[in-house]
Amino acid sequence: MSATPERRPGELMRSEIAEQPAALNRLLAEGREELEHARAQIEAFRPRLVLFAARGTSDHAALYAKYLVEIGWGVPAGLVSPSTTTLYGARPDLSGVLFVAVSQSGGSPDLVDALSAARAGGALTLAVTNSPDSPLVQASALSVDVRSGVERAVAATKTYTSELLALHQLLTGNRAAAEPLPDAASRTLAAEAGTAAAGRYRFAERFITTARGYSYATAREAALKLMETSYMAAQAFSGADLLHGPMAMVDRSVPVLAVTGNGPGGRSMAAVLERLHARGADVLEVGSPQGIPLSDDGIDDQLRPILEILPLQQLAWRLALDRGGDPDAPRGLSKVTESW
Amino acid sequence: MSATPERRPGELMRSEIAEQPAALNRLLAEGREELEHARAQIEAFRPRLVLFAARGTSDHAALYAKYLVEIGWGVPAGLVSPSTTTLYGARPDLSGVLFVAVSQSGGSPDLVDALSAARAGGALTLAVTNSPDSPLVQASALSVDVRSGVERAVAATKTYTSELLALHQLLTGNRAAAEPLPDAASRTLAAEAGTAAAGRYRFAERFITTARGYSYATAREAALKLMETSYMAAQAFSGADLLHGPMAMVDRSVPVLAVTGNGPGGRSMAAVLERLHARGADVLEVGSPQGIPLSDDGIDDQLRPILEILPLQQLAWRLALDRGGDPDAPRGLSKVTESW
Repeated sequence: MSATPERRPGELMRSEIAEQPAALNRLLAEGREELEHARAQIEAFRPRLVLFAARGTSDHAALYAKYLVEIGWGVPAGLVSPSTTTLYGARPDLSGVLFVAVSQSGGSPDLVDALSAARAGGALTLAVTNSPDSPLVQASALSVDVRSGVERAVAATKTYTSELLALHQLLTGNRAAAEPLPDAASRTLAAEAGTAAAGRYRFAERFITTARGYSYATAREAALKLMETSYMAAQAFSGADLLHGPMAMVDRSVPVLAVTGNGPGGRSMAAVLERLHARGADVLEVGSPQGIPLSDDGIDDQLRPILEILPLQQLAWRLALDRGGDPDAPRGLSKVTESW
Repeated sequence: MSATPERRPGELMRSEIAEQPAALNRLLAEGREELEHARAQIEAFRPRLVLFAARGTSDHAALYAKYLVEIGWGVPAGLVSPSTTTLYGARPDLSGVLFVAVSQSGGSPDLVDALSAARAGGALTLAVTNSPDSPLVQASALSVDVRSGVERAVAATKTYTSELLALHQLLTGNRAAAEPLPDAASRTLAAEAGTAAAGRYRFAERFITTARGYSYATAREAALKLMETSYMAAQAFSGADLLHGPMAMVDRSVPVLAVTGNGPGGRSMAAVLERLHARGADVLEVGSPQGIPLSDDGIDDQLRPILEILPLQQLAWRLALDRGGDPDAPRGLSKVTESW
């Protein structure tokens, strides 16, 4: 994708960030039947194990879904390394396994290959994409269209939150919990808290993001947005892993974004925050009135990652513009990775 | 751990790096019976799925083992998030599952809890540690002692390579392949290629490491060593993931360590190297005569990660000293993370 004279830098990403409440609403309204069909098929199949395959932003949606399965279903779940299939020719016996590939484009050949191999190995396959006519959907037994509308900015935003919601609906079936979400997303975006926070990071070269539980996906996705739009060395750690080694990197010169909250994951971050403060770290709390607040009244802990990422998308967008970049078309990237 | 007047900075890490060939030899000689016993029990159990739980350096050994299982056994494998058990109380049905916890100390409470929950859920449990009297071993049905000897430097080195070898022997049973390894490790260390490479990174603030397949564990572990000893923003990516977003960060100012080689994973890095070179990246190839060569003649591709990390440990050690740090006792860290 190349800039046209008419397009101002960042206008695609900006408008796609703003479209998210409408995209979430559309998925709930128009995707209902498809989600319920896929859910019924999966329930009938009764998977003994769920495997997820994805890359980049979609990998963070898969990580979120892994927690939903492990915690909510009492079934083990894992993220697969497509290379074991595509490079090493592994052909595991996947009878009884639900294999879920998540990809906005549905076009990455390595995911198509990994899903096809899983299907040949006995798995029930499901493709979660924003491209209902894609090769991944054609290769899969089941599919869900996240209905975000075309995403043109290279940095994915609306496809991420729609993937999270689609996976939540698919795996929990809890529609009532999702009803208030689009409005909460609107209010969270309208506050522009992420945009406002960008100023003080204008000259930062590094970032550490951290969270636990469902929100770990938020930390990972926020770091990727900062990497791909502002070229920062942004590193995401689960709160527990941060204490094993990486904590040594933390000092007053490295800003930290910590996702907190009232669920088990968020609460357990208290011990991490204590260690961070003891090291003199500069911490911005996401989901806290003192940091970046969210309009999360009445929103289930499981759905909160869909709100948490919104101000962090705004932060990445604003920061990239302030630093002279174009978050719509980061250097060195194209929208679909075809090389595998 | 605090410095004593007699101890020069880095001497613990230096001597533990040097002990690795002897530690590998000891594991092969003295650990044989224990490994064969565990292997026989696992074979009789015939796992339908293997789950690994670990933190920090040991998590990279677990990642390596995941590839061994997926490729060699034709059985799916996954890395678990201990928090789903310890924070959210998930109690999945793990009948038929082999649950492997890897930890040098065997003392992290979250791993003990996760392993105990897995055992209660029907899994066959195995603890791979350097501490045969640890709580993790006591909680586990099976255990393997990696026999590295006491590790005193906070940055783990010899326990990592011993964990890799123990997992290789346990999962492949291929003793013949491992026989030449200790000598190859001696020769690789004696070349001091990592020490020699350190000079030009004296003022680098960032690092990107990348690999695919078995060697992805090497990229992850090298990044952690650089983070914890030199406080660098070192980021590890699988070659495939690097192309999804993070490639935007790469320019002439960010050094890249790429693990290459003649196996499927190493060969597939050719496409990644091409993209890196097109972006003007400064790439040091690990496992290549033009970069950091290894004494890997006659060493199986599966065992090569045990050699690859050796010069990278030397690099991290030398760089930390050059930058005025003490790699034996990095700021902000202690040897065992007790807080979970």
